[in-house]
Amino acid sequence: MDKQITILGFAGSLRKGSYNKALLRAALELSPEEAKLEIFDLEGIPPYNMDLEDRMPERVKEFKEKIRISDAILMASPEHNYSIPGVLKNAIDWASRPPGDNSFQGKSIAIMSASTGMLGGARVQYHLRQMFVFLNMYPVNKPEIFVTFAADKIDDKGRVRDEKTREKIKELLESLIAWTRKLKGG
Amino acid sequence: MDKQITILGFAGSLRKGSYNKALLRAALELSPEEAKLEIFDLEGIPPYNMDLEDRMPERVKEFKEKIRISDAILMASPEHNYSIPGVLKNAIDWASRPPGDNSFQGKSIAIMSASTGMLGGARVQYHLRQMFVFLNMYPVNKPEIFVTFAADKIDDKGRVRDEKTREKIKELLESLIAWTRKLKGG
Amino acid sequence: MDKQITILGFAGSLRKGSYNKALLRAALELSPEEAKLEIFDLEGIPPYNMDLEDRMPERVKEFKEKIRISDAILMASPEHNYSIPGVLKNAIDWASRPPGDNSFQGKSIAIMSASTGMLGGARVQYHLRQMFVFLNMYPVNKPEIFVTFAADKIDDKGRVRDEKTREKIKELLESLIAWTRKLKGG
Amino acid sequence: MDKQITILGFAGSLRKGSYNKALLRAALELSPEEAKLEIFDLEGIPPYNMDLEDRMPERVKEFKEKIRISDAILMASPEHNYSIPGVLKNAIDWASRPPGDNSFQGKSIAIMSASTGMLGGARVQYHLRQMFVFLNMYPVNKPEIFVTFAADKIDDKGRVRDEKTREKIKELLESLIAWTRKLKGG
Repeated sequence: MDKQITILGFAGSLRKGSYNKALLRAALELSPEEAKLEIFDLEGIPPYNMDLEDRMPERVKEFKEKIRISDAILMASPEHNYSIPGVLKNAIDWASRPPGDNSFQGKSIAIMSASTGMLGGARVQYHLRQMFVFLNMYPVNKPEIFVTFAADKIDDKGRVRDEKTREKIKELLESLIAWTRKLKGG
Repeated sequence: MDKQITILGFAGSLRKGSYNKALLRAALELSPEEAKLEIFDLEGIPPYNMDLEDRMPERVKEFKEKIRISDAILMASPEHNYSIPGVLKNAIDWASRPPGDNSFQGKSIAIMSASTGMLGGARVQYHLRQMFVFLNMYPVNKPEIFVTFAADKIDDKGRVRDEKTREKIKELLESLIAWTRKLKGG
Repeated sequence: MDKQITILGFAGSLRKGSYNKALLRAALELSPEEAKLEIFDLEGIPPYNMDLEDRMPERVKEFKEKIRISDAILMASPEHNYSIPGVLKNAIDWASRPPGDNSFQGKSIAIMSASTGMLGGARVQYHLRQMFVFLNMYPVNKPEIFVTFAADKIDDKGRVRDEKTREKIKELLESLIAWTRKLKGG
Repeated sequence: MDKQITILGFAGSLRKGSYNKALLRAALELSPEEAKLEIFDLEGIPPYNMDLEDRMPERVKEFKEKIRISDAILMASPEHNYSIPGVLKNAIDWASRPPGDNSFQGKSIAIMSASTGMLGGARVQYHLRQMFVFLNMYPVNKPEIFVTFAADKIDDKGRVRDEKTREKIKELLESLIAWTRKLKGG
């Protein structure tokens, strides 16, 4: 049997009722047996400052270690001001540092986004993909998940109710797992 | 005589020896009499969380008020991972919130970036410009300032020594002032 | 009375039944008296080749002249492969050449896009906006018009039937006219 | 011995003395034995028109077939107006059509760009990468080749003289070959 694929998931929002955290919880429910998804909360990661790199905050060390031991990454992010949330970018900035210790190096990645509007966060995804070139990450091309009008698809308890969205998430996980296996050479 | 134009400047870095802070200090020296440039440090702005919007941190309130009373904005930013630094984006996210209280609404803006590499931060500037569409800001088109190989142009005391860079900064300030006057209809 | 504003419109598609041509025709119907919109068809503009710049094709000369005498530009474009259609970019490339004779220099511009999918061409618009920085054009920020599921909103005769879309187009024209007047200082 | 990898190369310029055609010719010289690079000239591909898809121009058919039988793609492109040349995008638009017959489907790809300016075409490369998501292509992350001040590095006969540039091109070819083998699972 193939070795289980380990995936680290995190959302680009600190809000308790975040729709994107809901997407990750749905991914947890929908995750096939051949993968193990763990979710990390970005709460507690302070603003990045290069002057502090030689005494990394504990929460950052923990984040970097979780990434390092994972085979693949799953990001769920809202779109703020037509781009990446500062909170998510800040966590990425820490994890990519210092030089020579980019925790994301060579990892496969899948992304999804939910928003209350009509575009579902499309703009944040293409900015993310540009970052992946520098980070040397390998993103899944398809499916692209843009959850539009999220308030209609996710209930008050933060559960993704929309069946099509759930199917897409499952499809994305399968795509990420197959892609990760291919990059690892089997 | 025309009314003085007030400009708020801030850098996308918390690092003490930041090259981009150096660009702002040069702008302060080079600022013509018809403008008053004030520099704000993003230190102390905590990670954005929508749940905290009804009890905005004091430092955020201060930042929003400084923006509100300014005629124009000047950003100097490094490029992290081929995009905007999380620290800068986080400050922008706070300042654009809550809905109906986007502090940047209708402001004119100029941007510059310095990096130790060969592209001088070009990639961060186009991500910023996409954000300005949502924020409803009006960026200056020219000149575009990409300070490449910043370590050769800025000395150990954080002073911009390169004459061409200083001229460009002066030109950018003049362009921002003229653009701001045009948009204000005066 | 204010001088009439002249606007040149063109679509990023050569297809007879183009949804984006339909948007332009709707703009023609909805255009207020204070503006004069003329539509130009990109048919007949050959592939750009720098070697031919000193003997510009007649159709290109005509296009450049139409742009030159207009106060403002209105583009309607489909999205091809998540970016600008080659046909539209090719026309822009010609019109921006040779050096020192960029026909778009300093013009105000508004953009809209229609697609049969769920994003309505959002991705082409941000690529266009990046080009406007080089072209030194001044785009309207709001409203942004993304006509999603265009086949439901435009009938077989190429008439925009959807009332909300028509209102948006009218709003965009008004925004473009006001913006053009502001930039002209009058 | 591993099967030879076939690569199709094309440049985003029709100009005879194109610097980007020169990059491709250098790639031809530097190509290792395990790969076979063929260069295709975009001359003769007419402007894309969806109405003509059922009677594809001969030159387009030829282009699509060349892509189809190749394992990998190598693009060399100038930057026009901060984005992709219309001529290159037009060829990509044709090759991706009609629906269900995207010739680029699943191909690996590497890109390089040369310009006479200081950024070496960086902006065109990120627009290209966004297109690859839709086209379902898999781009090489590293190295990124931005040939700045191309006039100093390529001689009058269109030969790349700069040794560092030649090394980079060789490195890119090796990276593309290894990446292609990995994706093909062999």
